[in-house]
Amino acid sequence: MGNLVGHAAPGSFFLLFAIWWTIRYSVRWASRMGGRKSSSTVCCKNAPLVCRFLSRVPVEGLCKIIFALAGLLCEQIAAHWTLIDPITGQFHLLGNWQHTTMYLFFALNGFCDVLIALKAPVPSGIDHLSMSLALAVEGMLFFYHLHGRADLDVRLHKLLLLAVAPSVFVSSLEAWSPETLLLPMIRTAFTLLQGTWFWQVGFILYPPFPGHEWDQDSHENMMFVSMAFCWHILGILLFMSVVYTVVYHIYQAKEKQLGTDLELGPLSSHMLQTHSDSDLD
Amino acid sequence: MGNLVGHAAPGSFFLLFAIWWTIRYSVRWASRMGGRKSSSTVCCKNAPLVCRFLSRVPVEGLCKIIFALAGLLCEQIAAHWTLIDPITGQFHLLGNWQHTTMYLFFALNGFCDVLIALKAPVPSGIDHLSMSLALAVEGMLFFYHLHGRADLDVRLHKLLLLAVAPSVFVSSLEAWSPETLLLPMIRTAFTLLQGTWFWQVGFILYPPFPGHEWDQDSHENMMFVSMAFCWHILGILLFMSVVYTVVYHIYQAKEKQLGTDLELGPLSSHMLQTHSDSDLD
Amino acid sequence: MGNLVGHAAPGSFFLLFAIWWTIRYSVRWASRMGGRKSSSTVCCKNAPLVCRFLSRVPVEGLCKIIFALAGLLCEQIAAHWTLIDPITGQFHLLGNWQHTTMYLFFALNGFCDVLIALKAPVPSGIDHLSMSLALAVEGMLFFYHLHGRADLDVRLHKLLLLAVAPSVFVSSLEAWSPETLLLPMIRTAFTLLQGTWFWQVGFILYPPFPGHEWDQDSHENMMFVSMAFCWHILGILLFMSVVYTVVYHIYQAKEKQLGTDLELGPLSSHMLQTHSDSDLD
Amino acid sequence: MGNLVGHAAPGSFFLLFAIWWTIRYSVRWASRMGGRKSSSTVCCKNAPLVCRFLSRVPVEGLCKIIFALAGLLCEQIAAHWTLIDPITGQFHLLGNWQHTTMYLFFALNGFCDVLIALKAPVPSGIDHLSMSLALAVEGMLFFYHLHGRADLDVRLHKLLLLAVAPSVFVSSLEAWSPETLLLPMIRTAFTLLQGTWFWQVGFILYPPFPGHEWDQDSHENMMFVSMAFCWHILGILLFMSVVYTVVYHIYQAKEKQLGTDLELGPLSSHMLQTHSDSDLD
Repeated sequence: MGNLVGHAAPGSFFLLFAIWWTIRYSVRWASRMGGRKSSSTVCCKNAPLVCRFLSRVPVEGLCKIIFALAGLLCEQIAAHWTLIDPITGQFHLLGNWQHTTMYLFFALNGFCDVLIALKAPVPSGIDHLSMSLALAVEGMLFFYHLHGRADLDVRLHKLLLLAVAPSVFVSSLEAWSPETLLLPMIRTAFTLLQGTWFWQVGFILYPPFPGHEWDQDSHENMMFVSMAFCWHILGILLFMSVVYTVVYHIYQAKEKQLGTDLELGPLSSHMLQTHSDSDLD
Repeated sequence: MGNLVGHAAPGSFFLLFAIWWTIRYSVRWASRMGGRKSSSTVCCKNAPLVCRFLSRVPVEGLCKIIFALAGLLCEQIAAHWTLIDPITGQFHLLGNWQHTTMYLFFALNGFCDVLIALKAPVPSGIDHLSMSLALAVEGMLFFYHLHGRADLDVRLHKLLLLAVAPSVFVSSLEAWSPETLLLPMIRTAFTLLQGTWFWQVGFILYPPFPGHEWDQDSHENMMFVSMAFCWHILGILLFMSVVYTVVYHIYQAKEKQLGTDLELGPLSSHMLQTHSDSDLD
Repeated sequence: MGNLVGHAAPGSFFLLFAIWWTIRYSVRWASRMGGRKSSSTVCCKNAPLVCRFLSRVPVEGLCKIIFALAGLLCEQIAAHWTLIDPITGQFHLLGNWQHTTMYLFFALNGFCDVLIALKAPVPSGIDHLSMSLALAVEGMLFFYHLHGRADLDVRLHKLLLLAVAPSVFVSSLEAWSPETLLLPMIRTAFTLLQGTWFWQVGFILYPPFPGHEWDQDSHENMMFVSMAFCWHILGILLFMSVVYTVVYHIYQAKEKQLGTDLELGPLSSHMLQTHSDSDLD
Repeated sequence: MGNLVGHAAPGSFFLLFAIWWTIRYSVRWASRMGGRKSSSTVCCKNAPLVCRFLSRVPVEGLCKIIFALAGLLCEQIAAHWTLIDPITGQFHLLGNWQHTTMYLFFALNGFCDVLIALKAPVPSGIDHLSMSLALAVEGMLFFYHLHGRADLDVRLHKLLLLAVAPSVFVSSLEAWSPETLLLPMIRTAFTLLQGTWFWQVGFILYPPFPGHEWDQDSHENMMFVSMAFCWHILGILLFMSVVYTVVYHIYQAKEKQLGTDLELGPLSSHMLQTHSDSDLD
């Protein structure tokens, strides 16, 4: 919807997922750096109930479906489920229908995630390909959305496309080399960028505080937003580094503790549990 | 030809092939999911005559040649085999000649398919490369076709190019990794999209029922068609999933039956044929 | 130079090389199809002197250098080696200088070929990369050449770019996978296309026979030339298939004869030479 | 900054790094050509102090950080650290802020280099990816910089983008295949090109000697600069070949000397040092 909430809502969805991914891939990377293949033992020891739940229920896919359907419903309630106005015979609120279409593809991606997580006999890689498709549809609709808008509006959405396009490319690459850790991390960074940029676009086009309207045809403003886009990138890299560093140090601490346990043998590990925990604190 | 039939005919050709491919690759995928390399045993048991015919005669390539020559003939009968009008000295019905050129390249692709199927000593990969070339020529001619048309017409054909371009790319990739199952499935999806979109373009530009003409310069209509393109994608994915699910379940049922036969030994399998068939029905 | 010869000369250079490559790669492909790795024995037996010369002297690279320098000299003799007109202080015949620049890069490519052929301690792959660079420079200068020309002229040169761009891409790929046979064959096809299209452009822009001038702003003519480009592709594929078929059959005949010799043992092969030769004739 | 120094400074930074890389990768290539994996023994024998320093302290990364911060400081001192003019409420010297942003990303790249060099537990490949990102940000800001400038200015910066874009691509490829020697050499060539082209742009737009101003709307000048760009490429290739040849011959001479030493055994190598050195001179 053409207001602040219509931009903040998808932005928040992207941010939520990307923050979750940042933590998840940081854990995976930290575990590889530490020489172990699986991080499951470290995780499951401390939070067995949450872990078991997460590993059996495809939370990520279900969240995608729920969020996408929620967004879809909001758009359609505003559009009264009407594509063609019965009185004028014209198309009715096409913008909302376009957003509905985007949400549908993300719901489809969630559905594929669930199928893969449940180990359904579906072709491997369809989770990444459906993600790539959802992003491509989003980018395509945004691209054809811009016809006849103000200069600043067009620039803001083109910059959004600069965040979407590499995600499309990286997601489809992931379908071919699912083991690479760099690819999901790059995808995460671009998803964070999409999230923060959606908020930025909302704030610039629909300023919530009166008196701060942006001149949409100013050359200076256009120069500024492309620079602001780069600052978002910088901020995101900073955020991801901090998360990775914290996760790495937590992981190393757990690892050391585990190592001590293993040296003492499996029998004594249970007994020494309290001791090594107090060492860490 | 610039009428509904001229768009419906190639659309139908693309649809026919893509539906056949959907079934064929679904069978191949189902057989890989089930742990077997070749689906030939399952297939050949039930329909030995059709199977032997299909495996020896390069049906796909021959169909391509026949369809392409049929399309070519229709275009040329309408153009009276005349490239330069002898009276005015001007080019005569260049559109038909362009379509003729496209059909020729698809005929060439069919010819390469036949050569490969007959195990002629030709370089491997020329079937995929000639497909890629035929699609590239189609895209190129469509792209240079659009000069000086109405906005909606241009948009409709550009969306068609969005379906052609990935097919070109995927087909040439197939020449390098012919074993991947994801690539032919993606090509199939984009070919289905081309087929349905050809029909859509025909219906929008040459409406068969009077009173439903589209305003070719309306901004709303242009916004709608890019959304309709995404709906086509959704419908195609739904269709492919349904076909794949049905094929997978048929395959599993056959597999189970075969498994029972194999456990009982080759001697008893013939005897129990009727029994296990009745189990399935 | 902006005349028929200025287009026919580079076109002929491209054609000459591409025809040579067609034969050379056909021989290599025929030998791989026949199960042997090297075609040298078959070749050298019949024409030992030519073969030894060809395998020691880097003919291809030297020809490139000679042709490029010849082209360069012609362009510079026409431009009187003058970049800045001493009287007006303006640039003098920049078109000729641009062509000179292109020729220089092809001479550089020839020089790299010579270095590789002489097994100089240079990094492998620089022959393919310098080819790619020469083509990229050619394409780039052509692209920036078109500023402010007639529609038909621009279209003709853009189509030339459509032949150059894939060559650039394929040549740089060859630096990474030099063993693939499909890549040089594709490069050969696009080089043939460049050669014939250079002639076509020359004939359209500078018609040698009076009374056949082309209207450079006609929409029909622009539609025709993009179709003619596709016909060139068809013709080239036909030419390459004929050459490949002829080479393959000659090769098979030689192979069979050699096979007979080998079965009879090396001692008798010399004795039976005349006999098996007469069988072939 | 919009003057000669503002273009010469980054140009010099790029040149400095690229010249250093030319030497470094030439040594690596020469050592591979000579059949040895590491060039360290040859280097360290003659200059042990410098070598040990270079191998322990991440000089390259630190230099990047220092240069980038120096550039950043100069830009900000000129802009008085002011983004929004407090009096007019307008953005203040956005060009300087854009350059600051570029320098920041190169500083980040230097920081990643230092982390990798210090063997910090960071994901491998982030040095190449951050380089790619810094170049992409540079290219993006330049691209959106050009809005509403003179034709020649736009052309000059677009040619700069032609040098930046392949560097972005090659740098990100390096993250995946860090062992290839061709990729860093190509990156080096494009960095040299950026360096010399920055100087060229500075000299054309802000001629240091009066009376040599360039007409910024002249068609001839635009034709010339795209040719001049190709001449820069030629010059750079010449420079790199000369450096490589010199390095290769020095390396071969050392190698031969070492070989003699090894044949005589490690005991006599020290004794014969003076003798073999005099052989070389």
